[in-house]
Order: sequence, then structure tokens, then C-alpha cells
Amino acid sequence: MLAVHLESGRVEVRREPVPRVPKGFARIRLLSAGICSTDLELQRGYYGFSGTPGHEFVGEVTDTGGGDKKWIGKRVAGEINLACGKCEWCARGLGRHCPKRTVLGIVKHPGTFREFLTLPIANLHPVPAKLSTELAVFIEPVAAACEILDQVKIPRETQIAVLGDGKLGLLIAQVLQAHGALVHLLGRHKEKMELVERPGITAELIGKNLPEASYRVVIDATGSVEGLRASIAMCQPRGTVIMKSTVHGLVEIDSAPAIVNEITLVGSRCGRFEPAIRMLTSGKVRVDALISDRFPLDRAQEAFRRAATKGVLKVLFDAG
Amino acid sequence: MLAVHLESGRVEVRREPVPRVPKGFARIRLLSAGICSTDLELQRGYYGFSGTPGHEFVGEVTDTGGGDKKWIGKRVAGEINLACGKCEWCARGLGRHCPKRTVLGIVKHPGTFREFLTLPIANLHPVPAKLSTELAVFIEPVAAACEILDQVKIPRETQIAVLGDGKLGLLIAQVLQAHGALVHLLGRHKEKMELVERPGITAELIGKNLPEASYRVVIDATGSVEGLRASIAMCQPRGTVIMKSTVHGLVEIDSAPAIVNEITLVGSRCGRFEPAIRMLTSGKVRVDALISDRFPLDRAQEAFRRAATKGVLKVLFDAG
Repeated sequence: MLAVHLESGRVEVRREPVPRVPKGFARIRLLSAGICSTDLELQRGYYGFSGTPGHEFVGEVTDTGGGDKKWIGKRVAGEINLACGKCEWCARGLGRHCPKRTVLGIVKHPGTFREFLTLPIANLHPVPAKLSTELAVFIEPVAAACEILDQVKIPRETQIAVLGDGKLGLLIAQVLQAHGALVHLLGRHKEKMELVERPGITAELIGKNLPEASYRVVIDATGSVEGLRASIAMCQPRGTVIMKSTVHGLVEIDSAPAIVNEITLVGSRCGRFEPAIRMLTSGKVRVDALISDRFPLDRAQEAFRRAATKGVLKVLFDAG
Repeated sequence: MLAVHLESGRVEVRREPVPRVPKGFARIRLLSAGICSTDLELQRGYYGFSGTPGHEFVGEVTDTGGGDKKWIGKRVAGEINLACGKCEWCARGLGRHCPKRTVLGIVKHPGTFREFLTLPIANLHPVPAKLSTELAVFIEPVAAACEILDQVKIPRETQIAVLGDGKLGLLIAQVLQAHGALVHLLGRHKEKMELVERPGITAELIGKNLPEASYRVVIDATGSVEGLRASIAMCQPRGTVIMKSTVHGLVEIDSAPAIVNEITLVGSRCGRFEPAIRMLTSGKVRVDALISDRFPLDRAQEAFRRAATKGVLKVLFDAG
């Protein structure tokens, strides 16, 4: 089968044997996979990654290694954290934080940019018939956006600032709007923000002066060093800043205003798939306009180049 | 009257007229005042401060400017934020965050290191008869420690790390222990930590390797750049780091582990006086051993030098 391979920043397409199916796992034929900013960071050499990246996907189950056969032929998405299932974290339903976990396409488990992948059956979610494969690729990133609602109580009509108009920022704005919040989306690209503007989402180009101490909730989805600092400055006393995008290396923050204003900073990562599937199926979160391009797996180098191009949003691998 | 004056890092004792009493205010004769780390920072020139510092005190009300006479002769402590009383924050009972506030001895309201001071009557709290003046000077810093319990739900027997064995760290350890938590106090000074060791407070000298991802709640009371970073590393996934001590200038943090582990960072500052008065009066928080020295106001230079000396804890001005 074909598999994309990353090594020292180089993207290669290799031929590999189809993966075997460990007990409790499913083998899944890839239908579509999305390139995420994290994949571009892996390419840049963060985490010393080498192997097959990719963690957003939809596929069809072809084998359950003698396990439950009802999954075979099902179109599925899958949670990316492979938990041990035995520790305290797993017992609390928080396998996403299992200290022994591997992570699909990120930590010690080969990713989705290959013709066949494997995941524990416990990680799979059937994709509803009325949700297309391309849109369902967004279940994982929409789940990451929905995670905010699991972590922080946000009353309806709360004024929220979302800082950053990348893929994640555009999804977060929609998820929060669907939840009933009044979203101010602040970014540098009018044409990207227009894709999600609607009643409840007001877009604004970031000027020199950001509004100070103005929002009860601020989401940093900038992926930039300045983003977190700006988010703290924009947050009201006793308000909450959600840290949604990682920056590699050390980030300088001015801790004094966070302390004087008693601001809460909440780190936020992966989320549950159920609310994301509901949001996408109901059309409350619309992602079709966020697909910039599609490539077959054997054009992976081109796909990675395209995904890293300024102004480009989601690039998909089509393997259906 | 005598008043301590800070200007460009110089401590001077001046003679000044007794302050007039604005409507709604009380004039208070100083009995005792404490030098806080913030005062030493003001001396170092942070915030461009010049004037009379000091915000921890006990005094006797001598005049209410024609207002409620029942306060006259009362021994009082006082909240340090002078709020406008009219804005949304004040309406929510959070005058501590009123954007128009001045702050006793810190922002635009002369402090407590003088023979007579003024504060709004609304800020005053009578000191219970059985609480001595010297111990009652600690009401303000103990309130700052108690603020943690107002911000974060901490179940009994939660294992908590308190990082830092300065005055604030020693008070926080006691407040959390009184609340029922199991406190691990980590510091660099065995002799300081011994002052508060008791069942429920285990002290440990900080070694080279701090325990990683081990505590559900970590309090950073170090006042150092490294403290916040270490606190994040010591915190369990989904845990909480309380940022209790400000560091001036920018603090470098590694945001990736905070996000990957979904850690919540909570800025924490001043607190309500009521629980602090209860904790001190009941003897649950013991502060007598934390008093290192006492000086009259006219030896202010000496008092500031002493307070800045390594190993010294609380230095008081006695004006009774």
C-alpha cells in the first residue's frame, strides 16, 4: 500500500505492507484525510517526529482481526489518543490524558496518510449517512473546538473574542456561535473570516490597538507568540483566556496583569467526538468552504506544499 | 504627623499635616503596619511609585468626618481597594476589580506607613477583641491566601503543592491545611518551613528534580520566573496552577505542556477579609512566629533594610 513518510522535514511516498490488526483493533481503508497545522509542525521537525503523520480521517473498516464483525464495512472517524484502558485517567473517561497513551500520527502510532491504518475499535465513531466523507474529516478538529464547551461554562449571549482566523479559529467561532455566544472574530484575513460571518459572528481585522479588558472570554487560536499576550490584555478581570494553539519553545507572557486581574488561562486540546458529529450533521458548523484543495496520496509532497501556502485552509488527501 | 515617603528608591521619614477626612471616609490612627514584598518592589521602582507605601495595618478610628460615629474608637483593619461603588464590578461585589479603583499605598492613595491614614468606612472591618493588633496586621495577606478558596473548588484531602516558602507561601500552606487539604510545601529554607509544619503540612527542600505531573493543584508563591514554569511541570493533566506571586517584566512559559495537559492557570490576588479574620481568630492560621522584627515609624529606613534581608519574614511598624 502507499504511505506518506516524514523524515527530517522531507515528505516521501513509500510502498509498505498493509498493517496487521492487533487484538481489539480495526484495520481501516482510508477514504479521506486532512492536513492539520500540527502535521506541518511535525514536518518542521518539532517533537523529532519521523514516520507517517495524519490524525484527521474518514475510512471504511475492512477487518477487526476476529473481533466484533458489525464494524466491517462501516464508515468511521476515530479518536486520536490510544489509551491503556487501565489507569486512573482511563477510568475517569479521560483516556485523552492517559500517561501511557500513543497518539495517531503524532506519538508512536503511524498516522492516517496511508491507504490502510489501524486504531482500537474503542476509538471508532460511525459517520452518520447524511454526513459526507469530506465534511466528516472535520470531526476531529471540530471536536477540539467543542472541547472548550466541556471545559468552561459559557452562558448564552456571552461576548467572546476569538483571536486568529486560521482553520481552528474559524471552527471555534462557529461552534461558539452555535452554542449561543456572541462571537467577535479577530484576524488578519478578511476573505477567510467572510467564510464564517453570520448573525452571531462579527469579523474584524486586527488593527494596531486591540480592545483592552473587554471580553469575559477570549480564545487564542493564533498559534503565535503574540497571541497569548494579546488575549490576556483583551480579557476582563476575572475572565477566561482559552489557550487553544500551541507555540513551540518558550512563550513570554506578562504575568502581572493576569494576576492583578485574576484571569484564568485554560489549556485546551482534543475533545469528544459526539458533539462534533452533531454540529457537523446538523449543519450548525459549516466546513465545505474551508476545503482549499484535494490531492491523492501519491502527490503528498505537493499537498504538503499547498497546505503550507499562505491563505490556504484545509487540504485533503482523497483516497476513496 | 510622621509619614514614610518613598521616592526613586529612597526611604525618608517626613512631617506632614494630618490628612483631612473626605465624605464617607474615616481617619485612622495607626497602631501597627506590616511591610509586604510589594512594598519592597515599590521601593525598587516598580510601577513608578512615589509617596507613602503600606497596605497591611491595624488602627483606631479617630474621626468619621461627621459620618457614622459608632466607628470612633474601634480597632479596625481595612480592605485596600478603594472602589467607585457605582460600576458593574462594584454592583457584583467585586470592587476589588473596579476599573476606577485606587489602591491603599499602591495606586493613588497614600498608604499605611504614617501616623494617621484614611480609608472609606465601607472598607473597614472591626478587629475582634481576642485578636491582638500584631496578629491582625496579617488579615490582609491571609485574605490574599484565602482568595484561592473563593476561586477554585478544592475538595478535602486534595494533595496540593505550595511552591515557595516566603511569607505568602507560609500563609497559603496554613490556609489550605485549615481547609482540609494535604499540603506539600516546597521551599529552599528549612528553618522557615519548620514554622508551619504540622499534620497536613509536609515540608520538603526543593531538590534538582521536582516531581512531574504529580499534583492536582499547585500554588506558585515563589515570586520567581522559574516558579511558574516549575508549577506547570508539577501539575497533573486537567489540574490547576494558582499564580499567586507576580514577577515583573515578561515571564517565559512553555505553553505546550499547559495546552497538551489542559492545565488551568488561575491568577489570584486580594481576597475578602471575613474568612481571614475567622482563620486568625480561631488560631487555625498562626502568624506569631512569622514576625521577624518591629520598628517605630521614625526608623523606617532600617525597617525597610531589615525587611529586604535574606531569611527575614514579616517586619512590622509599631505605632501604638
